[in-house]
Amino acid sequence: VSLPGPASAADPNAKDRLGAVGLGLLGLGNVGAAFFEMVFAKAATVAERTGIDLEIVKVGVREPRRKRRETALLGQKLVADPYEVVNDPEVRIVVELIGGVLPAKDLVLAALAAGKPVVTANKELMATCGTELLSVAEKAGVDLLFEASVAGAIPLIRLLKESLAAEQILRISGIVNGTTNYILTRMSEEGLSYKEALAAAQRLGYAEADPSADVAGLDAAAKAAILAGIAFDADVSTSDVFCEGITAISPSDIKFAHKLGYEVKLLAVAEQLGTTEESPISVRVHPAMLPASHPLASVREALNAVFVEGEAAGEMMVYGRGAGGLPTASAVLGDVIEAAHHLREETRARPTRRKARTIEKMSRLSCQYYLSIEVTDRPGVLAAVAGVFGEHGVSIRSMEQVGLGSEARLVFVTHTAREDDVQATVARLEELDSVERVGCLLRLIGEEDRR
Amino acid sequence: VSLPGPASAADPNAKDRLGAVGLGLLGLGNVGAAFFEMVFAKAATVAERTGIDLEIVKVGVREPRRKRRETALLGQKLVADPYEVVNDPEVRIVVELIGGVLPAKDLVLAALAAGKPVVTANKELMATCGTELLSVAEKAGVDLLFEASVAGAIPLIRLLKESLAAEQILRISGIVNGTTNYILTRMSEEGLSYKEALAAAQRLGYAEADPSADVAGLDAAAKAAILAGIAFDADVSTSDVFCEGITAISPSDIKFAHKLGYEVKLLAVAEQLGTTEESPISVRVHPAMLPASHPLASVREALNAVFVEGEAAGEMMVYGRGAGGLPTASAVLGDVIEAAHHLREETRARPTRRKARTIEKMSRLSCQYYLSIEVTDRPGVLAAVAGVFGEHGVSIRSMEQVGLGSEARLVFVTHTAREDDVQATVARLEELDSVERVGCLLRLIGEEDRR
Repeated sequence: VSLPGPASAADPNAKDRLGAVGLGLLGLGNVGAAFFEMVFAKAATVAERTGIDLEIVKVGVREPRRKRRETALLGQKLVADPYEVVNDPEVRIVVELIGGVLPAKDLVLAALAAGKPVVTANKELMATCGTELLSVAEKAGVDLLFEASVAGAIPLIRLLKESLAAEQILRISGIVNGTTNYILTRMSEEGLSYKEALAAAQRLGYAEADPSADVAGLDAAAKAAILAGIAFDADVSTSDVFCEGITAISPSDIKFAHKLGYEVKLLAVAEQLGTTEESPISVRVHPAMLPASHPLASVREALNAVFVEGEAAGEMMVYGRGAGGLPTASAVLGDVIEAAHHLREETRARPTRRKARTIEKMSRLSCQYYLSIEVTDRPGVLAAVAGVFGEHGVSIRSMEQVGLGSEARLVFVTHTAREDDVQATVARLEELDSVERVGCLLRLIGEEDRR
Repeated sequence: VSLPGPASAADPNAKDRLGAVGLGLLGLGNVGAAFFEMVFAKAATVAERTGIDLEIVKVGVREPRRKRRETALLGQKLVADPYEVVNDPEVRIVVELIGGVLPAKDLVLAALAAGKPVVTANKELMATCGTELLSVAEKAGVDLLFEASVAGAIPLIRLLKESLAAEQILRISGIVNGTTNYILTRMSEEGLSYKEALAAAQRLGYAEADPSADVAGLDAAAKAAILAGIAFDADVSTSDVFCEGITAISPSDIKFAHKLGYEVKLLAVAEQLGTTEESPISVRVHPAMLPASHPLASVREALNAVFVEGEAAGEMMVYGRGAGGLPTASAVLGDVIEAAHHLREETRARPTRRKARTIEKMSRLSCQYYLSIEVTDRPGVLAAVAGVFGEHGVSIRSMEQVGLGSEARLVFVTHTAREDDVQATVARLEELDSVERVGCLLRLIGEEDRR
């Protein structure tokens, strides 16, 4: 389908045109279909605004003969072989929206090798082999743009890479998974249990039938890897990211957090631990207790937000819809227009040069901790438990008993302690007869910066 | 001063270098000095990251002989004649940080005519003659970048122009003046009067001795004009912006807003009134009542935030430090790196094509209104006042009397009404014997989108 642009004869901008820019689309799922519709609806506007005529030349889908909304418009342009899309000489830009590492990686490599810019929304791909692909793109002198791979429509990549090009990023803390934020919001505002809130999220389509990638923090970990890579020019992949999910959090943990003036959020954190650009970095995902006055604390429902601390720019936050077909397609189209602009100008996006940076082990980090310990309510329990903290050099800031009898729990907030000392404390506590379970461990974050 | 980059002989990136990029700096005030220091401190890092060596070649200041921190480093490079900076053949990029329309405009025009990209943080200039300057830059094929002219380090221009290139922007609502947001925060949180809060802001350096440009909304109006221009490709200047300040707001207005579940903020709003890109737009600055759950409502102190509503991307907000030497200098340096990258690649930023758009008169807009009316507390007052509303077709949603005797005020919230009807109501009310003054008029905003 050749999408209409303004008639070029009468058009004063015609001199700027490089003719229609052929797009090859891989995948016609949620994001792919939204992208297709958006190109169809917006091509004339885009042409008028930017002088760039976009045209979808070929679309690779698993079952090209299956009846779909787009069939009438695409017809013969729907093909089963994705390489037919990549290798079509009329395809100038490849838009990869199939997701997953393989075959996406091979397709992207083939496109780059053919000198074709690639726009992708593929989080797994960029989190797993982003450094390799960016290096291939750089050597080929071709764009590889991936704004839509993190936080949907929120323009984080461009923010970090361009607007803050001169900025030393100190820390990025983000709510980058809508499913878990929705669950935590319901737990926080309505006192639902984790299971009830998960069921509500599933009913509304915010969580999948198998929610494990979201609730275990793996989706957030992939995004943390991508963000850390951009913020610190570092080679970080998902496997480098320490990751804890939200399944152990109970309504009473959240109630206790509120009492202390905190909110509980699943955070993806990437930070530089020292003062120089050679310092180690930390990349991690875990539930955290944030002061209620922190801008991230008021991010509700399935929304995403990323808080950036820069040396000169100070604190900054971007907030918006982190997922969904339309917002993600909007980010993809923004990248496609950039790639087309670069084709016209015979240039490319700024090169990305990554270096190996030391990623500090979680065990060596320090912060304050909240621990909830289910105990048998009998004399001497507190002394035994407190003794374990003492043995491991973990100093207690506050303690409270919640509930009675078989429901009794001891809730501790520590002073700043090292992760390995706290983990050793937890392991030893679990061996005590009087301790039934260490229920939940939350790290306190953002304390130092807040009033 | 030639700032050090990594030794180029041994540097694998050396092939990408175009040699040092000479910068000509106009102005060494708050932002200029911070920019100078940042280039000095960061040049090596920037060179390593981007392959671009920045070098400050010449600096134009009013009194080059005055002793300043930078004298030792700059020496002979400090000159009194700004054209000496612009015309220096070694100056490849002109960084305009003097502020005000003249002589800045002539200097920018001279630089563009000489084919030199310009980076500016000059809000007045871009709000007054942005369309003209961008058109000159476009014809000359030269960059004119102005990220720092609105909201300091918050990367709004790049967000609107690039990330949301394909997006139909529906509305932008922003807290873009730190001084007034600081004053309103103190009034809201501590019940201070406007005068007390202004004095506090002046003590802390958030407000100037003559605060009129801030408190009357003029600073915000200039930023609204720039944002509307970018968001709607429209030719908008400060004089097109309806503007009301915060001086009439009393602590009791804010208390009343809280009671209704609102917060009071000075907003800059740019919105498209119809559904197409030919529809009229509205650009205005006024105090507004926002639902407490609106993300803008929790933006405190001197911080800035801009809430963007896009057709596909949905709601989005960026938040950060909107002023100050360092954050602004960081945004300037981001633009300088972009301009230098374009010089190296022999390309330029995406062209901006503006068109005339109808800017709707304020009098024709409709919303709900809050009005506070100081009255003489005697029988029949309410009937007289309510009668005036009725005569003008303004329907009342709620009314309450606050205070007694000479302190009595009637507080109204209307149903949706037209601005001209409300203004006619106010004019007629002020003629009534029993009305001493119409104290404060606040427009309700963001209602429709919130739960």
